[in-house]
Amino acid sequence: MLTPLLDSSGSRPLYEQIYRHIRGEIEAGRLLPGERLPSKRALASHLKVSVVTVEGAYAQLLAEGYIRAEAKRGFFVLAAQAPPPPVHTLPATSSLPAQAVFPYNFSTSGVDTSLFPFSTWAKLMRETLAGRENALLSASHPQGAPELRRAIARHLYRFRGIQADPEQIVVGAGSEYLLGLLVQLLGREGGCGVENPGYAKTHRILTSCGVQVRPIPLDEAGLRVDALEQAGVRVAHVTPSHHFPLGIIMPVTRRRALLDWARAKPDRYILEDDYDSEFRFSGRPIPALQSLDAAQRVIYLNTFAKTLAPSLRISYLVLPPHLLERWRREFWFYSSTVPSFEQYTLAQFMERGHFERHLSRARTRYRARREALITAARETGLSKAGTLSGGEAGLHLLLEMNPRFREEDLVERAAKVGVGLSPLSAYDLTPPPPERPPALVLGYTRIPAEDIAPAFALLKSAWGF
Amino acid sequence: MLTPLLDSSGSRPLYEQIYRHIRGEIEAGRLLPGERLPSKRALASHLKVSVVTVEGAYAQLLAEGYIRAEAKRGFFVLAAQAPPPPVHTLPATSSLPAQAVFPYNFSTSGVDTSLFPFSTWAKLMRETLAGRENALLSASHPQGAPELRRAIARHLYRFRGIQADPEQIVVGAGSEYLLGLLVQLLGREGGCGVENPGYAKTHRILTSCGVQVRPIPLDEAGLRVDALEQAGVRVAHVTPSHHFPLGIIMPVTRRRALLDWARAKPDRYILEDDYDSEFRFSGRPIPALQSLDAAQRVIYLNTFAKTLAPSLRISYLVLPPHLLERWRREFWFYSSTVPSFEQYTLAQFMERGHFERHLSRARTRYRARREALITAARETGLSKAGTLSGGEAGLHLLLEMNPRFREEDLVERAAKVGVGLSPLSAYDLTPPPPERPPALVLGYTRIPAEDIAPAFALLKSAWGF
Repeated sequence: MLTPLLDSSGSRPLYEQIYRHIRGEIEAGRLLPGERLPSKRALASHLKVSVVTVEGAYAQLLAEGYIRAEAKRGFFVLAAQAPPPPVHTLPATSSLPAQAVFPYNFSTSGVDTSLFPFSTWAKLMRETLAGRENALLSASHPQGAPELRRAIARHLYRFRGIQADPEQIVVGAGSEYLLGLLVQLLGREGGCGVENPGYAKTHRILTSCGVQVRPIPLDEAGLRVDALEQAGVRVAHVTPSHHFPLGIIMPVTRRRALLDWARAKPDRYILEDDYDSEFRFSGRPIPALQSLDAAQRVIYLNTFAKTLAPSLRISYLVLPPHLLERWRREFWFYSSTVPSFEQYTLAQFMERGHFERHLSRARTRYRARREALITAARETGLSKAGTLSGGEAGLHLLLEMNPRFREEDLVERAAKVGVGLSPLSAYDLTPPPPERPPALVLGYTRIPAEDIAPAFALLKSAWGF
Repeated sequence: MLTPLLDSSGSRPLYEQIYRHIRGEIEAGRLLPGERLPSKRALASHLKVSVVTVEGAYAQLLAEGYIRAEAKRGFFVLAAQAPPPPVHTLPATSSLPAQAVFPYNFSTSGVDTSLFPFSTWAKLMRETLAGRENALLSASHPQGAPELRRAIARHLYRFRGIQADPEQIVVGAGSEYLLGLLVQLLGREGGCGVENPGYAKTHRILTSCGVQVRPIPLDEAGLRVDALEQAGVRVAHVTPSHHFPLGIIMPVTRRRALLDWARAKPDRYILEDDYDSEFRFSGRPIPALQSLDAAQRVIYLNTFAKTLAPSLRISYLVLPPHLLERWRREFWFYSSTVPSFEQYTLAQFMERGHFERHLSRARTRYRARREALITAARETGLSKAGTLSGGEAGLHLLLEMNPRFREEDLVERAAKVGVGLSPLSAYDLTPPPPERPPALVLGYTRIPAEDIAPAFALLKSAWGF
């Protein structure tokens, strides 16, 4: 008879101890396939437990397929089991990519979180929490909460001159996610052209989603439409309001040429990534491609990562009407990826004018940094050795250096004195032309204005200009 | 000379009015390519505005590529522009798929949101908001906040006997998103087998992500491993703890056969979707495939959509160590798709035992409904016409009916008396075998216990059993 060592101190229920014991006996091969188990009554009396306890154990063994029941005959052991698996060996956390931390950080990622109107946001969150219980718990509209889409449409109209119906907007958990969704919407055939140099992540995401990606060279007006035509791709990804990282603002003539390219063949599309268009420091913003597009070939993509905080994970698309139809036909089953809570809070934040006020504060602060940067470059005499450009918009500048320098050297020597900046080559998708001067990308979302002059003094000593 | 009608009431800045006027003249072809514009000074004096105002207008025209500047010669019109685009015609909202609303709803989607401990959750949200400003605004760890992953690992161990290191966990904005991520991680080659009948969304998402999907038939133990082998796929998606919608709990023998299948060839994987394993009503849960897997071939996937609320959009993966390595090498650039705020709140909710208490309350309530359902079926005499099954776990039951009925008829007649339920055929990926009896899927997350008997009385009259 089976005799588990039962422990009634209560650490495990008795039925479980019996179950575990029998399972162990089967797995160890001490109970063989076909063998009959004692009847429930017999085992219960043997072990001095109730019949219900044994029933619980047998039911579990049955459910897991260790034994089978035969009507009026009892319980029989099923096929022997494999030995229990060994414990996994876990990878060391050292496999994580390391990130250097610099005292003076000209990184282009992240935003200045000290700008974020946290107390206003928190207040709106508390209001949302208090007033919207049901709405918060039910799944939101697949395209995003209607009130958030209305607020975004109003913002786009006032701020970017974009006429978008809230119905055309699809809200999602970050631009990376939405890019993957677009691949599903537009299909993988024909491939996608991306700006070279450009935002490497776009290349990686598209590739990872199964799209053939072709790097397209730029000239001073941005993406070269002739090269795009030559590449034979069907979709183009562009950052016309402020190229990343060169800072080019695509002029209207090139915008129209790009739209003509899209119109020339059926099923060609342009993804307009307007990632930092809110930060323009001189003149009115140039009309978005989307607002020049009569042929429904432009998909507009923007994010709140740069304007609020990356941790919010809210981006959105404006789909042209016929693609919206397709999306609703084929992808309606996708749930919204953004929690309702953040959607309602953000809608209120925009509705009550907080977003516009926040943007204007952010613009003022970033403008001061941009000016500090330009001043510091001039005052340290950097202009003898290099040229700053790309500063009419966006949150970074390009520093083109005299060809006597080498990019890697500049980055390395800057790092040694505690200044972090990226070489332009970090954004090359193919080897750059040999005649291109060395250049560095200087983001100013992370570095306080008062740190900029000291950083440039350090660069002066490190680079010797 | 250009003579815009300037309006100094302040509706638009003067520079913008001038800019718009000149742009209009160029677009209308009244200013021709190559034509020279008046000098800034001359135009300013003509219009009685300051030179700075004209400068603003010219700068905008320059930036947009309508004119070009030549040193010491002035400003010249560039190539003529296309006419402005017509306003888009928007699709009618009638293109949205309609959803019927039934007084008695046996839908399988959604949860009973009245169970959600809203005030506890709100309290934790307020605490998170008060204490974590910096952490909330900075981007969270790409795999999800470490404290949430620790809480999930503890839950998995206590509740499912799964030994997962928090390092193996990847948190994402819903299972749909994570499924797309897995396609990128595992690749598209070889195709994926899915349960047939099964969760149609899985089929659609995988197909939409570019994967060849093969429906695999089931027998009484779940996914048929012989059919899987025959289909020649490389990946299998399964719901072993409670098949959707048949309710089969896969016995250990079949689990082991499935693991053997995965081990038999390199690069074979099993996606174990444990979507409602928390709701088991009799016996202990069967060990997850993941915990029987010695060969690192199982990827475990679960969600908080069923246990908390779908609107939260938090799901997670447990990756086997070697896939974790691959993910970190190739997909580290993906930002976490869940806002930090929800992640911290959920971590606290789990840490302090609220999640376990909530689950136990939810289990009690759903168990009562399941029993009400079984009782109502018996008391209305439904057992003469059909059989309920699949109720040991999960949140739905399968009702197999006498072959004299037709599925569509049953659904239609139920709908007419206000009872919503799904035909089993809604989950067929291929035409079912002709001998299969008609069956219906009855979810009980939405219907209150006291509505169940009245609903069955209505079914009795509608179906005539």
